[in-house]
Amino acid sequence: MKNDDHPLAKATQSHSAEASEKRESKSLLDRRTFLATGSSVLGIAAVHAFFPSATVAASSSPKDPTRTPGSLASSYGTRSVFEQAQRLTSSTRSLTPLQQLSGIITPSALHFERHHNGVPLIAPQRHRLLVHGLVHQPMMFTVEELKRFPAQSRLAFIECSGNSGKEWNGPKGSTVQETHGLTSTSEWTGVALSTVLQEAGIQPEASWVLAEGSDAAALTRSIPLAMVPKDTLLCYAQNGEPLRPEQGYPLRLLIPGWEGNACVKWLRRLKLMANPAMTREETSKYTDLMPDGTARQFTFEMDAKSVITSPSGGQQLEQPGFIEVRGLAWTGRGRITHVDVSTDGGTSWQAAELQQPVLPMCHTRFRLAWHWSGQEAILQSRCEDETGYVQPTLTDLIAVRGFNSYYHNNAIQSWKVNKEGQVHNVQI
Amino acid sequence: MKNDDHPLAKATQSHSAEASEKRESKSLLDRRTFLATGSSVLGIAAVHAFFPSATVAASSSPKDPTRTPGSLASSYGTRSVFEQAQRLTSSTRSLTPLQQLSGIITPSALHFERHHNGVPLIAPQRHRLLVHGLVHQPMMFTVEELKRFPAQSRLAFIECSGNSGKEWNGPKGSTVQETHGLTSTSEWTGVALSTVLQEAGIQPEASWVLAEGSDAAALTRSIPLAMVPKDTLLCYAQNGEPLRPEQGYPLRLLIPGWEGNACVKWLRRLKLMANPAMTREETSKYTDLMPDGTARQFTFEMDAKSVITSPSGGQQLEQPGFIEVRGLAWTGRGRITHVDVSTDGGTSWQAAELQQPVLPMCHTRFRLAWHWSGQEAILQSRCEDETGYVQPTLTDLIAVRGFNSYYHNNAIQSWKVNKEGQVHNVQI
Repeated sequence: MKNDDHPLAKATQSHSAEASEKRESKSLLDRRTFLATGSSVLGIAAVHAFFPSATVAASSSPKDPTRTPGSLASSYGTRSVFEQAQRLTSSTRSLTPLQQLSGIITPSALHFERHHNGVPLIAPQRHRLLVHGLVHQPMMFTVEELKRFPAQSRLAFIECSGNSGKEWNGPKGSTVQETHGLTSTSEWTGVALSTVLQEAGIQPEASWVLAEGSDAAALTRSIPLAMVPKDTLLCYAQNGEPLRPEQGYPLRLLIPGWEGNACVKWLRRLKLMANPAMTREETSKYTDLMPDGTARQFTFEMDAKSVITSPSGGQQLEQPGFIEVRGLAWTGRGRITHVDVSTDGGTSWQAAELQQPVLPMCHTRFRLAWHWSGQEAILQSRCEDETGYVQPTLTDLIAVRGFNSYYHNNAIQSWKVNKEGQVHNVQI
Repeated sequence: MKNDDHPLAKATQSHSAEASEKRESKSLLDRRTFLATGSSVLGIAAVHAFFPSATVAASSSPKDPTRTPGSLASSYGTRSVFEQAQRLTSSTRSLTPLQQLSGIITPSALHFERHHNGVPLIAPQRHRLLVHGLVHQPMMFTVEELKRFPAQSRLAFIECSGNSGKEWNGPKGSTVQETHGLTSTSEWTGVALSTVLQEAGIQPEASWVLAEGSDAAALTRSIPLAMVPKDTLLCYAQNGEPLRPEQGYPLRLLIPGWEGNACVKWLRRLKLMANPAMTREETSKYTDLMPDGTARQFTFEMDAKSVITSPSGGQQLEQPGFIEVRGLAWTGRGRITHVDVSTDGGTSWQAAELQQPVLPMCHTRFRLAWHWSGQEAILQSRCEDETGYVQPTLTDLIAVRGFNSYYHNNAIQSWKVNKEGQVHNVQI
């Protein structure tokens, strides 16, 4: 079939006669043209900024791609030149732009980063894992040796316990990336921690294992053997390929459901101990100062949490009508079983639909069709996990934990839509 | 804890005194040193080439990464400089290096590519999807409009029906990438095809839909409405981010379990028809010439198939001992339920372990511990899916389909291990 003959060419020509150039730069006009044909897309209002504008001018692409031979196959693919991640980065962290993602997998290149003294450059041939302390036989492993053990994979989220920490005392982040961007989901592959510990042989008095990274901060955490999940892995791969450097290449711990800093990256040492080592990262950091002056310590499991990713802070509803409210929920205790959404600040709730796949220890997508009337609205989501735990309000959280906390904030997030359709971070 | 004090520094120093430089370049020596401590890693023999050698000299990395501040956080991550994909690429296709992958997700950058006239450069603002033919209301959609419909995600493999086609008449590919590298698994997100067709309204006499790409080949396939799975998607995202250009950016069909060419990329047109259009890609191509001179046509569903990825062609077993045999299985009809492995060319079989997650329409990992005696061995895998379909031998396949076929070869693959531990592609 010749291109000239086929109906798309004709349809495009008939439209193009009046508005060709304008259509490319003004999507609203295009939408009106489209609506004028008598059809509708569920009556959904256009939402600016849900998807980023192109970073390369459309005019640099062929008007008719069928008339231009395309580019050749590549050895390692890259994004379209028309897409750019709206990713926030400082020296020691990069956030995951949750408002731009689809599905539950986070691309490895956009997995959040958090490190205390930079990403070390580690040649895998030089890397060693030492297993020592209260063991029958101290051992040292190369990465190649660890890869020969039986392999295991699992999909799991990792969340920094500092995620949403700045939201504890009033709304701070202007986008969902800023409020919730320290969580990501990947498929992780490695050898079971239990397999490696079995090789060395654990002495009866060993109750804790110290995990140490080989970054310049030598990040070190004590992990209670009685609590550590049996599917804890020493990982060398993420989303099919070797770990990314910022995710601990060539070796990291993955403790499914536990706070990110316990999943020690660039792992070089496991020391079996009778008691916790009380390192900096489990005393002055990553503990929660309670109202009575004591500290919650070794609170590894991440509580159930959810957030609406669209509409979310910084976005703009164009006009009243139907919108699909979309978001993510996750829990360190297994599977998400239920998500409710409120559009009136928590007065009334509606059950959202959970989008497949719903997997344990993974981000889970939810969605709800909502008709925006054009009036002010407060959007919230509240999730429940398979243990029956229900995500709390910030008020409930503060009633127990007071105002000195920073880590482990899993409170319900509120987004306010004003009459102009602008969306802002608020606390009610 | 000071770095000087901790046991890893001491342990490294004691080893380094005798063999520091050699340990970095000769892993065997290191392994022997390790074994000399009295421990063993399940007695597994070292297997060369399972993981590629570093492409950057280890000496360019700090000897002690804890003494050098690392690099800062990045806005879009990249692989380690010490890892390089062993990816085979020609002008119109790139293969997935299955022998290098872990888990079930294929990184988007390593998803196989297959295109007939190159990868088109498409500005998403310019792209349109026309729905016409036997519909109540012809419609044209922008990509933004499609993104406003309710979103759906699913993990699914896509396999080119030409995968393993060259193996039909004798062993050809020297590695598993060459024999089986035209299959990959991703998470795909988009709008249901049924939702979009419902908007346009299907006339009663419509039984087929023509899907056309906007590449320079304008690849076009006819799809029977009665057979198309209800979870067929018009996709705009893959593994969390926008589709990669070579995967159909900004829009492709995903028909879970169907051959890759039916999952039309760069999708620009859907025409509802009473009969198939009999395009080039469903007459002279992508059909199977049978012994009686007729052609099997419109055979969309991919039959159950499996392959051992390690040990596989081009790899080398270092010495007799235990090895984990690892591979992938998949089926276009749902879930893989069973995989058997033979090490004697199909005379006897052992049930392999399926590695979680086992998801419908996805690559599924299997593994089996095997003791290589040092003698010749023929490794094979044979899978079964939830419909009870069992992967055939090539002999069985040829008995039905003859010698003129190329597409849809899902036969059992054989790898021969010779006494020297070299692994080669054979047919028995």
